[in-house]
Amino acid sequence: MSMNTFGHLFRVTTWGESHGPALGATVDGCPPGIEITEEMLQHWLDKRKPGQNKYTTQRREPDAVRILSGMFEGKTTGTPIQLMIENTDQRSKDYGDIVEKFRPGHADITYWQKYGIRDYRGGGRSSARETAARVAAGGVARAALAALMPGVEIAGYMVQMGARKAEPSRYDLAQIEQNPFWCPDAETAEAWAADLDALRKSGDSVGAVVEVTARGVPAGLGAPIYGKLDTDITAAMMSINAVKAVEIGDGMAAACLTGTENADEIRMGPNGPEYSSNHAGGILGGISTGQEIITRFAVKPTSSILTTRKTITKSGEDTEIITKGRHDPCVGIRAVPVGEAMMACVLLDHLLLHRGQIGEAGGRIGPQG
Amino acid sequence: MSMNTFGHLFRVTTWGESHGPALGATVDGCPPGIEITEEMLQHWLDKRKPGQNKYTTQRREPDAVRILSGMFEGKTTGTPIQLMIENTDQRSKDYGDIVEKFRPGHADITYWQKYGIRDYRGGGRSSARETAARVAAGGVARAALAALMPGVEIAGYMVQMGARKAEPSRYDLAQIEQNPFWCPDAETAEAWAADLDALRKSGDSVGAVVEVTARGVPAGLGAPIYGKLDTDITAAMMSINAVKAVEIGDGMAAACLTGTENADEIRMGPNGPEYSSNHAGGILGGISTGQEIITRFAVKPTSSILTTRKTITKSGEDTEIITKGRHDPCVGIRAVPVGEAMMACVLLDHLLLHRGQIGEAGGRIGPQG
Amino acid sequence: MSMNTFGHLFRVTTWGESHGPALGATVDGCPPGIEITEEMLQHWLDKRKPGQNKYTTQRREPDAVRILSGMFEGKTTGTPIQLMIENTDQRSKDYGDIVEKFRPGHADITYWQKYGIRDYRGGGRSSARETAARVAAGGVARAALAALMPGVEIAGYMVQMGARKAEPSRYDLAQIEQNPFWCPDAETAEAWAADLDALRKSGDSVGAVVEVTARGVPAGLGAPIYGKLDTDITAAMMSINAVKAVEIGDGMAAACLTGTENADEIRMGPNGPEYSSNHAGGILGGISTGQEIITRFAVKPTSSILTTRKTITKSGEDTEIITKGRHDPCVGIRAVPVGEAMMACVLLDHLLLHRGQIGEAGGRIGPQG
Amino acid sequence: MSMNTFGHLFRVTTWGESHGPALGATVDGCPPGIEITEEMLQHWLDKRKPGQNKYTTQRREPDAVRILSGMFEGKTTGTPIQLMIENTDQRSKDYGDIVEKFRPGHADITYWQKYGIRDYRGGGRSSARETAARVAAGGVARAALAALMPGVEIAGYMVQMGARKAEPSRYDLAQIEQNPFWCPDAETAEAWAADLDALRKSGDSVGAVVEVTARGVPAGLGAPIYGKLDTDITAAMMSINAVKAVEIGDGMAAACLTGTENADEIRMGPNGPEYSSNHAGGILGGISTGQEIITRFAVKPTSSILTTRKTITKSGEDTEIITKGRHDPCVGIRAVPVGEAMMACVLLDHLLLHRGQIGEAGGRIGPQG
Repeated sequence: MSMNTFGHLFRVTTWGESHGPALGATVDGCPPGIEITEEMLQHWLDKRKPGQNKYTTQRREPDAVRILSGMFEGKTTGTPIQLMIENTDQRSKDYGDIVEKFRPGHADITYWQKYGIRDYRGGGRSSARETAARVAAGGVARAALAALMPGVEIAGYMVQMGARKAEPSRYDLAQIEQNPFWCPDAETAEAWAADLDALRKSGDSVGAVVEVTARGVPAGLGAPIYGKLDTDITAAMMSINAVKAVEIGDGMAAACLTGTENADEIRMGPNGPEYSSNHAGGILGGISTGQEIITRFAVKPTSSILTTRKTITKSGEDTEIITKGRHDPCVGIRAVPVGEAMMACVLLDHLLLHRGQIGEAGGRIGPQG
Repeated sequence: MSMNTFGHLFRVTTWGESHGPALGATVDGCPPGIEITEEMLQHWLDKRKPGQNKYTTQRREPDAVRILSGMFEGKTTGTPIQLMIENTDQRSKDYGDIVEKFRPGHADITYWQKYGIRDYRGGGRSSARETAARVAAGGVARAALAALMPGVEIAGYMVQMGARKAEPSRYDLAQIEQNPFWCPDAETAEAWAADLDALRKSGDSVGAVVEVTARGVPAGLGAPIYGKLDTDITAAMMSINAVKAVEIGDGMAAACLTGTENADEIRMGPNGPEYSSNHAGGILGGISTGQEIITRFAVKPTSSILTTRKTITKSGEDTEIITKGRHDPCVGIRAVPVGEAMMACVLLDHLLLHRGQIGEAGGRIGPQG
Repeated sequence: MSMNTFGHLFRVTTWGESHGPALGATVDGCPPGIEITEEMLQHWLDKRKPGQNKYTTQRREPDAVRILSGMFEGKTTGTPIQLMIENTDQRSKDYGDIVEKFRPGHADITYWQKYGIRDYRGGGRSSARETAARVAAGGVARAALAALMPGVEIAGYMVQMGARKAEPSRYDLAQIEQNPFWCPDAETAEAWAADLDALRKSGDSVGAVVEVTARGVPAGLGAPIYGKLDTDITAAMMSINAVKAVEIGDGMAAACLTGTENADEIRMGPNGPEYSSNHAGGILGGISTGQEIITRFAVKPTSSILTTRKTITKSGEDTEIITKGRHDPCVGIRAVPVGEAMMACVLLDHLLLHRGQIGEAGGRIGPQG
Repeated sequence: MSMNTFGHLFRVTTWGESHGPALGATVDGCPPGIEITEEMLQHWLDKRKPGQNKYTTQRREPDAVRILSGMFEGKTTGTPIQLMIENTDQRSKDYGDIVEKFRPGHADITYWQKYGIRDYRGGGRSSARETAARVAAGGVARAALAALMPGVEIAGYMVQMGARKAEPSRYDLAQIEQNPFWCPDAETAEAWAADLDALRKSGDSVGAVVEVTARGVPAGLGAPIYGKLDTDITAAMMSINAVKAVEIGDGMAAACLTGTENADEIRMGPNGPEYSSNHAGGILGGISTGQEIITRFAVKPTSSILTTRKTITKSGEDTEIITKGRHDPCVGIRAVPVGEAMMACVLLDHLLLHRGQIGEAGGRIGPQG
């Protein structure tokens, strides 16, 4: 019931604000005996780290993660794992403007209306810096998955920026690490670079669509009716800052299909059931089919822009605001490793749930079935 | 942690299968002193009830709900409310075909792979009949909302069937009850009627998009970071059978916007903050803004169709299947009251959470602010 | 977070009031493939059933349980199991006296003060009739334990009534079913019979101590720090009506021991570690040791007595009350099967939790250790 | 579901091991606007701090707590509060003996059997050092209670050490801070001093009974059936290291009473209902009556003693062990502030739950009742 906790058996509680002394994640429920090092977690944090290129915020944060508990001699002990990331670049500046004014599109006004107090420094708790803690926790989940469900491959990448979409026929996962947009389509990545340069000059921002897939997930994961695998994946992605929509498989496009078109036909393959297509995105009835799991989420444009916008003050006076400072023109870019981390957490969580309720049971398909 | 329970403080646990003796919902956490009658709940169940017109399944179910506990002298007592709906039309028939074969697009194969046993009769637990229990529970939530948060209006309606979308400029909520599609656009409703007649003749089915809105929700509801109001609404909708995507506000379209376009500007009105637009769908940082809350979800086409489809048997043999029987050509139609019910449950749940953590506190905006 | 739900993965939600149409338990999280029949559950309910001898309430209830969901062809499917017990003997009578007056020692006054409304008929939700639902759910847990952790033996019995204690040197589990007090000491059972006859004549009641043990529980069950096996067993027993204290192992007597006396020494046996004694009650650090698990709980005397007692009315006037009607002179007797049921639920729950977090891992002791 | 989390709405997750770099508590659900300083929390930590007199472990720990998040300008913001205590006195020593041997009475063997890996340094996670985090979190709960439920007074004290009990007729709460045993009976405190001196010389230890009371708790707190106030208090106390039994009100002694003796009669007082006695310990049906809440728990003697004890090694060989090092001869002494902290957490949690489900409702007793 913790409102800052995610997961059923693999529980991640994130804490900390953008400009506080530190932030982190309390990870409870990780199985014992998993080999984890700070370097392993740092690898993923570095992928998300700000200031790596001109397309992301110039805030300089090493985002160095420390493991404070739950480990002994390099392995998890089954006790809570505390992951702490100290904030270093809390540029001392005059927050004057945002102390009294609410930035349109930000959570400033709603945090005030809900809590009656808010840490306005860099957005406080509502800052995307919180996602650094998710990425660290996701690193723990990845290590456990590698040990308990070897062969799972999680891939996140950007498939759309503004109105320009990447071309699936050109997808090459090897390209993802080759451009600053985590784009599997090199040609589109170049176009995005030009698009974003223009946007940055105008001080504007733009939205994006991120796709996250998981291959090698066995059939049977997911807990209907209210702990469905797709429900939990959707909730995980929607909880990421600025996300406004989540799709599974064909997503919104499924509305346009007929049942004949949508049916993923089944045939028996050498290693079990195979499907003629994957409109379902690897999930039926909330349970994994063994196919690739596919989700996409839309990230709205950064609300911090250099265009003057109308707003009000805490005392209710109409005014205007320009959000200066160091911001991502396309926050979707840095949402990629966050989406991957959330996918890893959900998959591990459901693996543990499945072991708990089902154990080794479950139905086999085949002559002995 | 119950996998068949939804909600934090207002907890709904649904139970029952399509062809079992009964199904229902165990509702825990409803505040005491709320006036509820079986008639009030029946009103909503009748809206969802099958067999009401040629566009929905011809299964005949009265869906009569009984309140077995939690009430005294017409009011809730604060103890668990048991809502039971007996199944009457369990047409005794030969299930032969689906006993051994898995229906493509259905959860038959994944339930088998997960549990090693499945109630194949009408889909068992994975049948959309489970949503009757949600609608009954939603009736309880509506009654509590009416008492604790008067003025809230929840409206659900279908905005797209197949490729044909309703025209917002023609929306008239008064039209919703005037056509079998819960469509606010009378002109589109007529076109859908023609579309669906053709589909039914061909034994095919089609997807749809349902929109659910809530007006009169005060600012401040929602529990960041992992109990955000939009996260919970999204999870609630995604948990409904056949849903493949959920949007909040502009949803997927937000990806195409610039920050300048997306910013909902704020001005001070006579009763508090007002916004120039509602791209956010009434939620910022996971907390309600006081604007209309807007969500949409895509429902895939019914997988039960008269077109022959390739599949396999439990013993792993390739075969074909045609799904005869009584099915909704567009299951999206009957998803409308379900979406409304889920919205009611989420809003009540977050109202209780807010009362619990915040009580009467929260920030006022204005001179005294 | 449901306040009427018990358990982590094996979740039991009880519902219903003493004089409502029915009461029951919604059991979620039971593993699939477990053979269960209504007869199996009825066996345990009959053990608790009222009106079986002159020492328990003369209310006549068949307490017939019906399984409404979660089963298919005699086996659990992994979906929620709904257990319903209809109330038949709701003797229509004038509740006049307890409508306005609060019975001392009962929850009448606190339910009123909390909820502002209460079902005064037979105590409503606070009646010990609620425990019938626990016993039914416990039957499900026993069946699952028999399948997943064979060899576990749960035994509950009364060891004290009033000031008279049973003599451990005379314990014979075979005697438990031979007397109306579930007492393993036949000699003491006879003395209790005389004691209780006298008490009944005087219209008074008396307290008792119940002991529940579990043999054959493997080492390793329990989830520190806040889901310790002893914590959950203690909470389970304390949640039973009229229980005022719970002990594990030596319990309160541990306070009088020195460390030297209290240490259960360890030696290696043919099948693993053996202990020289069991002061710990089979649990160390919240985790089972493999020894017999021992818990005891004190049940206060029934508050419904024929002695006039001072009390007040809802309108705050001083008055007196005599609680007539059908009551157990020693409610501890019927608490025995309830304690057994709670023990079964806790053990199954922790078995599932252990499978989930640990799986087949865990440390072996021995040469290969 | 986190196994290291306690509470429903006010959620405390403790983390850390005895000899790790740090330990702490992640506190989620604290209402916003509560004034808290590190000094306030330190006050309670100092009360529990080791090495304060010859009767507690000589381990030297400043137990300095840092607040890393959830605060802004001296007040809580409603976001997670991270409390960190760094371990300083991790005396580098040869752990040789306990690396391979299991200490009788300790959790060494069960942690090994459950997890297959254990941090043997000082007991790792099972060390009583974990309770420092509880005391820090309890300080947060106390501050919130002072603001939201003013007038509540929580008092913890030791009432028994070994066989020697304090004399209630001599209780004087002012004495509690005047002796190293937190004993309200000065005469008994002196006797305990002599008893403990003798025990320490012999290298032995002894058990104790701690009582914790709460005055000024309004009627109506508690959430039946499975979130009863007494159930949660009992679970909270039982989760403390070395606790073997918990009593509410008369506790085990209730078994010896008759209904006539046990009934707390009710009369109307100037400020509401008054009771002739408090056998119930301030709780009826799991809900507070407004009387003083009384709980007691038994703490077993420290298992670390200088007497040679038989045990085994990880490889299953019989051996012997003497537990040298710095240990509390009566761990019950330092359990006093821990019990107080747990009481504070439970009371705040139930206040928030009550606000959430009931709000301002609830029944009044009196003419207008």
